[in-house]
Amino acid sequence: MDIALLTVKDERLHVLLVRRANEPEKGRWALPGGVLDPAVDCSLDDTVRRVLRSKTHVDIRYTEQVQVFSGQDRDPRGWSLSVVYYALLPGDKVSAVAGDKAEAIEWMDAMELNRQLAFDHTLLLEAAVAKLRDKVEREALPLHLLPGRFTLTELQRTCEVVLGRPLDKSAFRRRIKEEPALVEIEGEFLRGPQRPAQLYTTAEDFQF
Amino acid sequence: MDIALLTVKDERLHVLLVRRANEPEKGRWALPGGVLDPAVDCSLDDTVRRVLRSKTHVDIRYTEQVQVFSGQDRDPRGWSLSVVYYALLPGDKVSAVAGDKAEAIEWMDAMELNRQLAFDHTLLLEAAVAKLRDKVEREALPLHLLPGRFTLTELQRTCEVVLGRPLDKSAFRRRIKEEPALVEIEGEFLRGPQRPAQLYTTAEDFQF
Repeated sequence: MDIALLTVKDERLHVLLVRRANEPEKGRWALPGGVLDPAVDCSLDDTVRRVLRSKTHVDIRYTEQVQVFSGQDRDPRGWSLSVVYYALLPGDKVSAVAGDKAEAIEWMDAMELNRQLAFDHTLLLEAAVAKLRDKVEREALPLHLLPGRFTLTELQRTCEVVLGRPLDKSAFRRRIKEEPALVEIEGEFLRGPQRPAQLYTTAEDFQF
Repeated sequence: MDIALLTVKDERLHVLLVRRANEPEKGRWALPGGVLDPAVDCSLDDTVRRVLRSKTHVDIRYTEQVQVFSGQDRDPRGWSLSVVYYALLPGDKVSAVAGDKAEAIEWMDAMELNRQLAFDHTLLLEAAVAKLRDKVEREALPLHLLPGRFTLTELQRTCEVVLGRPLDKSAFRRRIKEEPALVEIEGEFLRGPQRPAQLYTTAEDFQF
């Protein structure tokens, strides 16, 4: 299983990559991945959370299955099958992510990769980003990419980063009015050079 | 891997079920399934086509991956993982489908199952139908469910059967005007009690 851990950093969607410490494709950058362990994982979702914890030392709240990639040409070691997931990390948790000593990690721009990834991982990443975009386009706000408290402007900006296009402010405000997962923090405002902006958070039991 | 082979029969969406000839859950109805054989399958898509051919004796043109189901509670034999696909069979090919001698097959209403399926196959089927519905709702015409020649009324009816709700005729006609996969068969009409209806077919290279 391979995971595209996505976050927003410097106003761009970024993905966590790991430099492979072993052959094949040693030294190349890849999505973090792991292998199902039936002895400890109740389901593949458990595998994803376990692998992410071991690779990042952070508990990731939101993961979603993307697609299965399979075939004999994916890996020089022979026939392989991988279930691809994406996972979302709030922007303010990026600094908490720490790799293992054995493997270098790096956040890379997910829309404009400046390196060729190992195996077919470029395709896997494209599928993961497409799935997230589609979800945000059609039905959901990417609340799991936001910190614990945020303004509506930050929320709109995060949507725009995911979708790669600007959104009309008044249409966006209308859309989020019906979002039950969005909770106003009473009496809390972000104060800056402009007029204070209401702060929001995400409902406790929200699952995306 | 398990497959929901779907077709339209008696104006309802139907799914092919196979009665299990062996334990566990012997005698219960299940989705047809098979196991990946790396020696002959170039990818999981190949596995799906091979399994469908062996279970139905028909070549199925269109398959799509739905989701992976996994866990220790799915099957009494222990931890298991299954990639679920749906496949679409044109309504006029239903009679060509023949099961193996060892296994009884039956077409069952996919929206109103009158039997509890083996294992977690009711959930698998629900996920498959939801994926097809979503695709037809959002972006595609279910052309692979139609026979080689069909009228626009038949096409609309097939969409309605998949979606489970009536569609407005003029809105539907506007939508299909932009569908490049839909090809008018010049000079061919369905003649009946009403005025002749233009016949259509699907473009050769059409992939859904």
